[in-house]
Amino acid sequence: MSFHLHPRLAVDTSLIGDLELCRVLLMNDARYPWLILVPRRDDLREVHELSGADRLALMNESCHVAETLQGLFMPDKLNIGVLGNIVPQLHVHHIARFQTDPAWPGPVWGHSSAQPYPSEMRDRRVAQLRGAFGL
Amino acid sequence: MSFHLHPRLAVDTSLIGDLELCRVLLMNDARYPWLILVPRRDDLREVHELSGADRLALMNESCHVAETLQGLFMPDKLNIGVLGNIVPQLHVHHIARFQTDPAWPGPVWGHSSAQPYPSEMRDRRVAQLRGAFGL
Repeated sequence: MSFHLHPRLAVDTSLIGDLELCRVLLMNDARYPWLILVPRRDDLREVHELSGADRLALMNESCHVAETLQGLFMPDKLNIGVLGNIVPQLHVHHIARFQTDPAWPGPVWGHSSAQPYPSEMRDRRVAQLRGAFGL
Repeated sequence: MSFHLHPRLAVDTSLIGDLELCRVLLMNDARYPWLILVPRRDDLREVHELSGADRLALMNESCHVAETLQGLFMPDKLNIGVLGNIVPQLHVHHIARFQTDPAWPGPVWGHSSAQPYPSEMRDRRVAQLRGAFGL
């Protein structure tokens, strides 16, 4: 099945790998452990446009990602969001939030510009996440 | 089964009714058609803390709410969010977004203070939504 990642998502992230339904991407912002799930289906904008089987897969993969972030980073709270007001391709943000992070207690979206990972730190984080997901 | 709505959620919303899993609340902000789903389970903060059956019910009810908002209001985009950085009780925002709304294309959370519905308009909106959900 064909799947095309929106170029804006490609530019802003590093590839972790593919789960059964979703591509897992690391947002290139060193201030927050921030993963984006993109269902590998073309031409979708909303969760409810997924088939019944894909809805269930998305819920399961979202919970798996949430539990993994919880286990690795022990955040104070997880934030999950489907916005897509700017990038229309359906994608689901998963962000580990801390009371000490710059945007707390507000949302990270629209707060301020991303602070890219230094490249060595990004490589380590990608490797850590691939290991945690077995990808 | 006991269920206690967080007082902050009670103050900020009007009751639409109960689906099988979730209480449906209308956020008292006339600028956005904005529904909040609260799984009627005590002591949960994160989606992944739900049982497998409840996760599936939440996905189904979330999609039902999204489709209902889409059908009633024909928004440019739906925004769905699980934040809970301030109100710890697990709750899921569903917001019909328009390119003409005050926060577009940013998130509504943290943008500005709510503008409460005039009471007659709120009554009409509650009745409209109860009708749409058969509640």
